[in-house]
Amino acid sequence: MSDIKDFIVKNSPRFLDELFILLRIPSISSQKEHKDDMHRCARQYVVSLMEAGTDRAEIYSTQGHPVIYAEKIIDPQKPTVLVYGHYDVQPVDPVELWKSSPFEPVIRDGAIYARGANDDKGQSFMHVKAFEYLVSKNELPCNVKFLIEGEEEIGSPSLGEWARQNRDMLACDVILVSDTTMISEAVPSINTGMRGLAYLEVKVTGPDKDLHSGHYGGAIANPINVLCGMIAQLIDNKGRITIKGFYDDVVELSTEDRAMLARAPFDLEHYKRSIGINDIAGEEGYTTLERTGIRPCLDVNGIWGGYTGEGAKTVIPSFARAKISMRLVPNQDHKKIAHLFAKHFKSIAPAGVSVEVVEHHGGQGFLAPISSPMYQAAAKAVGQVYGIEPVPSRGGGSIPVLAELEGILGAPPLLMGFGLERDTIHSPNESYLLSQFHKGIESIILFYKYSGYLA
Amino acid sequence: MSDIKDFIVKNSPRFLDELFILLRIPSISSQKEHKDDMHRCARQYVVSLMEAGTDRAEIYSTQGHPVIYAEKIIDPQKPTVLVYGHYDVQPVDPVELWKSSPFEPVIRDGAIYARGANDDKGQSFMHVKAFEYLVSKNELPCNVKFLIEGEEEIGSPSLGEWARQNRDMLACDVILVSDTTMISEAVPSINTGMRGLAYLEVKVTGPDKDLHSGHYGGAIANPINVLCGMIAQLIDNKGRITIKGFYDDVVELSTEDRAMLARAPFDLEHYKRSIGINDIAGEEGYTTLERTGIRPCLDVNGIWGGYTGEGAKTVIPSFARAKISMRLVPNQDHKKIAHLFAKHFKSIAPAGVSVEVVEHHGGQGFLAPISSPMYQAAAKAVGQVYGIEPVPSRGGGSIPVLAELEGILGAPPLLMGFGLERDTIHSPNESYLLSQFHKGIESIILFYKYSGYLA
Repeated sequence: MSDIKDFIVKNSPRFLDELFILLRIPSISSQKEHKDDMHRCARQYVVSLMEAGTDRAEIYSTQGHPVIYAEKIIDPQKPTVLVYGHYDVQPVDPVELWKSSPFEPVIRDGAIYARGANDDKGQSFMHVKAFEYLVSKNELPCNVKFLIEGEEEIGSPSLGEWARQNRDMLACDVILVSDTTMISEAVPSINTGMRGLAYLEVKVTGPDKDLHSGHYGGAIANPINVLCGMIAQLIDNKGRITIKGFYDDVVELSTEDRAMLARAPFDLEHYKRSIGINDIAGEEGYTTLERTGIRPCLDVNGIWGGYTGEGAKTVIPSFARAKISMRLVPNQDHKKIAHLFAKHFKSIAPAGVSVEVVEHHGGQGFLAPISSPMYQAAAKAVGQVYGIEPVPSRGGGSIPVLAELEGILGAPPLLMGFGLERDTIHSPNESYLLSQFHKGIESIILFYKYSGYLA
Repeated sequence: MSDIKDFIVKNSPRFLDELFILLRIPSISSQKEHKDDMHRCARQYVVSLMEAGTDRAEIYSTQGHPVIYAEKIIDPQKPTVLVYGHYDVQPVDPVELWKSSPFEPVIRDGAIYARGANDDKGQSFMHVKAFEYLVSKNELPCNVKFLIEGEEEIGSPSLGEWARQNRDMLACDVILVSDTTMISEAVPSINTGMRGLAYLEVKVTGPDKDLHSGHYGGAIANPINVLCGMIAQLIDNKGRITIKGFYDDVVELSTEDRAMLARAPFDLEHYKRSIGINDIAGEEGYTTLERTGIRPCLDVNGIWGGYTGEGAKTVIPSFARAKISMRLVPNQDHKKIAHLFAKHFKSIAPAGVSVEVVEHHGGQGFLAPISSPMYQAAAKAVGQVYGIEPVPSRGGGSIPVLAELEGILGAPPLLMGFGLERDTIHSPNESYLLSQFHKGIESIILFYKYSGYLA
């Protein structure tokens, strides 16, 4: 196995040079001004895939941002791994909190710092390099397909339709994904499920223009006060979401399943320290790992209204807005939940305001098949690289499209994530440890070797 | 009297030319980048005052924006009117809602449209022109002093200290102010009291960085949700402010006083229609005019936190902020209330967050002496111009510095306001009706004539 480690160490400078080219492209899928960057990034990704040894690598247009598809078919009779990843990234604001420019990657204290360093350019690029190794050694044991999309961060609105239209081309036996975290380098873990997501935007409108708060204050409903009151009502004092019917489809885990999840080590003091909070919060009766792993939740992701500049302005604004999302657990239908939310939110509006609710995007949660040979191969590979058996864990985040792809392609996803909490994806100073980048490539190579597709 | 009307009509184009020069200067006191504009505006105002006939007009430095002082002393033995006004204006955002540029004044449908058209460049300029008339006719019956400040919209932080240092220079018998509204052109009114103000900014901080809402959602206190919950608690379901001790010093009006205020005509349907709301709101047991005139209130003037850009971002933000102000009634001490607010707000913070409260500015409410000869002179002047006896009314807004000036100078304020609701001061498309501009000048000239200072 030292041959694999040698290959990675020797080629690491080149790998980083190639990855940095991708990282320098500001492929922010949610912002229209980056439309050309999306195309530029897709073209660059195609170059990387061709250089790594795919038979073909192409850019496909969709209703939204383009999709990259590449493949190397060694034998149509052999099994096929479909690698899923995404080349789009989150916005970078508040940009003033970045220690180095988000799109000028640097190595600092053993980690790559850049937007996308982990999520998901860094993680998906490990698959390109693992694939390159196997091709260069002529050791590829199966067919490999790459599906790298550009809309993961905005809920993959176009990929489902495109995948349905290209179902035959995408046919596979497993969907292999590195877009999640493990517990720590000392306690490697493999993700066995993700939460779903329903994301909405609300607007509360009062008067038809901004008003002087002295002339009108006390006599009319202030849209900000009203919005705050409505948001406050969404969660009760036991941390339960108050939307009627919200928990109807939530599967309660068995004592046995909860015990298995509790095997994951968790240090509360470290957890609090790592994010600078003095106390945790959440639904009564559940542990922190359960709250993020197996329970749904509701968070306001953004709020704005009125005067937010320097100093004071005595205004009652015409409207206030908020972006609100719910993480869902398997069996909760994101469309049904979005509908319940909209209905409930409108129903609690007091007199004197009107309420609009717009749905942004959503996706189903899902469970990965823990008992499958695929999971076992991944566990063996990760265990060998880290020197300790990985723990199965449930991720709190969402890759909404995975449940959809599973349905379309009839193949289960397998989540081998190498991100760490410290990487602060979606936040300023996103990073990815070089050691994880290297161990990830090695683990993926070993996964192919142990995957049961070998003769 | 037709001589006065003639003078106004004949000179109106010139008055507007002169006023427009002032209106073109973006003297926004709350924004640092307009520091030079403040000086430019002060110099221009001095030119107007000298041209109108003051003996001297000067710019005085303060800790903040400069103060303009001008005077014409006809006889030190005669009584003195001190005209108070302000040349600073509110910010203009949301600027995209303005139909014409806020600092390029235009006449449209019989009204001047510009930031400051009413508040307070337009209203204070009427005094300059009324003074010009009396000087030009050699009919000035008393000494006149002008005090035009540049920090009214930010709570007049420097004026009190400056006025204390220049108490002798400012000595007067009445402080005459046009910076308020009347009920309508058909129902003229004179303001007999204003509410005070306490304005604060709060910040709720949770984690020390923005976090991925999938990884942490459900397990930690989200600063936006928390801030909303805290704001929601500030007012109970009867519309009463829940801050401990908040109502301790509020003077309850007698049935008689409330009956007098109820004389002001009020058309609820028109009120709702004029600001596009489907229902009113507020403290139980009080009418709309009482809610804005004699009762205190609490409004969030601005709120922001998390992702507020286009599309969706799945973030739990590190912090959320709000600007919150309270309108106070006479006898409530704004410093005491600000202190009570800060103490209360911190006390209701849940575990998992920290709370900061910063005080922006404040001012005392006050009552004008309705029974004084000054009020009677104003009522006679306004009644003659409008053809109907004016109604005494209580304004909901605040001119925080007036109570302070009254204390320093020992002279009562008299509020002759000619603004109308439709002027939407502090909002986009601020305007001032030409008819009110003309009637205001005429009323002020007549006020001097009836003021009892005449021989």
